[in-house]
Amino acid sequence: MGILVIGSIAFDSVETPFGKRNEVLGGSATFFSLSARFFDTVSIVACVGEDFPGRMLAMLRSKGIGIDGVEVLKGRTFRWKARYGADMNIARTLATHLNVFSEFVPKIPAHLAGARTLFLANIDPSLQDDVLRQVRRPRLVACDTMNFWITHKRKALRRLIRKVDIILLNDSEAKQLSGEENLLKAAKAIRRMGPEIIVIKKGEHGVLLSTRGSHLLAPAYLLESIRDPTGAGDSFAGGMLGYLGRHRRIDEQAVRRSVIYGTIVASFAVEDFSVRRLLTLRKSDIVNRYRDFCRITRF
Amino acid sequence: MGILVIGSIAFDSVETPFGKRNEVLGGSATFFSLSARFFDTVSIVACVGEDFPGRMLAMLRSKGIGIDGVEVLKGRTFRWKARYGADMNIARTLATHLNVFSEFVPKIPAHLAGARTLFLANIDPSLQDDVLRQVRRPRLVACDTMNFWITHKRKALRRLIRKVDIILLNDSEAKQLSGEENLLKAAKAIRRMGPEIIVIKKGEHGVLLSTRGSHLLAPAYLLESIRDPTGAGDSFAGGMLGYLGRHRRIDEQAVRRSVIYGTIVASFAVEDFSVRRLLTLRKSDIVNRYRDFCRITRF
Repeated sequence: MGILVIGSIAFDSVETPFGKRNEVLGGSATFFSLSARFFDTVSIVACVGEDFPGRMLAMLRSKGIGIDGVEVLKGRTFRWKARYGADMNIARTLATHLNVFSEFVPKIPAHLAGARTLFLANIDPSLQDDVLRQVRRPRLVACDTMNFWITHKRKALRRLIRKVDIILLNDSEAKQLSGEENLLKAAKAIRRMGPEIIVIKKGEHGVLLSTRGSHLLAPAYLLESIRDPTGAGDSFAGGMLGYLGRHRRIDEQAVRRSVIYGTIVASFAVEDFSVRRLLTLRKSDIVNRYRDFCRITRF
Repeated sequence: MGILVIGSIAFDSVETPFGKRNEVLGGSATFFSLSARFFDTVSIVACVGEDFPGRMLAMLRSKGIGIDGVEVLKGRTFRWKARYGADMNIARTLATHLNVFSEFVPKIPAHLAGARTLFLANIDPSLQDDVLRQVRRPRLVACDTMNFWITHKRKALRRLIRKVDIILLNDSEAKQLSGEENLLKAAKAIRRMGPEIIVIKKGEHGVLLSTRGSHLLAPAYLLESIRDPTGAGDSFAGGMLGYLGRHRRIDEQAVRRSVIYGTIVASFAVEDFSVRRLLTLRKSDIVNRYRDFCRITRF
């Protein structure tokens, strides 16, 4: 099988300068899988509470996403509440209720343990490591993380990232993890920690891809309106790993293009609240915007 | 003749996280001309005080820069003092002493009035307009401006920019001038004010070029260390207009490449304090870094 993602399924309550939504579908595994599905088969390992509507799971399944690994646990679904100001690069978290997620011990169903590509979305690095040990021989392993784990679980995180091929993180996380203010130096320092491929996301300012002896600087796709940046990072990861996972040879060019596909899918995700835009998105939209991106970056 | 720049020659006192320099050579016309000289002949129209060392004028002349238009006026040379914090995109101005510049009435010597390319660096838009009227038939006119003029001389600025081909400004200035928070919308709004070509500089985050019906997004050239961002914008303008001024046809591709040459020259300027790096720079350094920039942006 193709891609396995371990991450969250959540209810998000989000306020941006363009509106407000209450308890809408969110979570890293949700955004990732709805993005990766355009390129490869994808299954989720996650948990939801008893309050999670069956129609939402049915919706994910209708989009071709494997949900056999989604456990329904006693209690309430993970909830996150945040507000974005004029600078939409920064989310101000107002509340995080882990609920069922606080007790979650991910178990990979046997038929999913043969995934070729594994994405360890942003959860406790010890859990990410547990999952990694349950997957047999993934060809490609990528992880995300956040400032909280860098501060409070640094050892476990360092142990994990020794074993991954790709790490995705935003610019402030890269600086925090490496202790370097300069992004090129930060990328080099993180590469010395293990991963071959470092992806540093700078929100609306694009992305720095650092590979052995080379790097790519790519701008973000500029939109006239961004309604909700929630899920941009996971949609980026979905587009990137979806594209890369299908490649026979993971060479420099494939990695570079995968970063652009990540950029493109993320640019759709932020056009509307929650996963709304990802639900109406078609593969041809992605292809057309990729072509447009080529035009607006070539000189 | 080639390029004429009207702007400042100044003494800068600058503090960055990487050091401190007192009363070093600065000014928009200085950075611009030392950058543009790699591509085209360039002459300065500016003023200095009696305290300005002859050896500095001789140094500019030794670099091939025309200084016949530099008037020595009674009084002291323009002085600017600023500090940059960890975010080197933002200069905190500590002092501005216009000195001789406050009384300056630019007069274009007859033999410079036939310039093909005219750069109106950041000064009072009424003065920019005066200069524009003194130049006979420039093929290409570009201007820079700043928040102060947008606030206090908006009418004069709007009158000026109706007549220029290219306007260069940074992202916050573009938002202020257009009243649009979104950069694509800002660029469109400014294009409706007159200029065919809008260049919005985002510091370390690169540049947005907006032309009729098209745009280019280019990252900045990423450096491991930036010692002093002073003059980056004028060096960018120097590289861009230097490259463009020499082109027989100013078509879309030439404009796009000129933006990249601007990016490259600016990336050298910030490697050291004042104009130090521009003085040791060679054309081959620019060409090599341009090639490197192609490598790190192609996918």
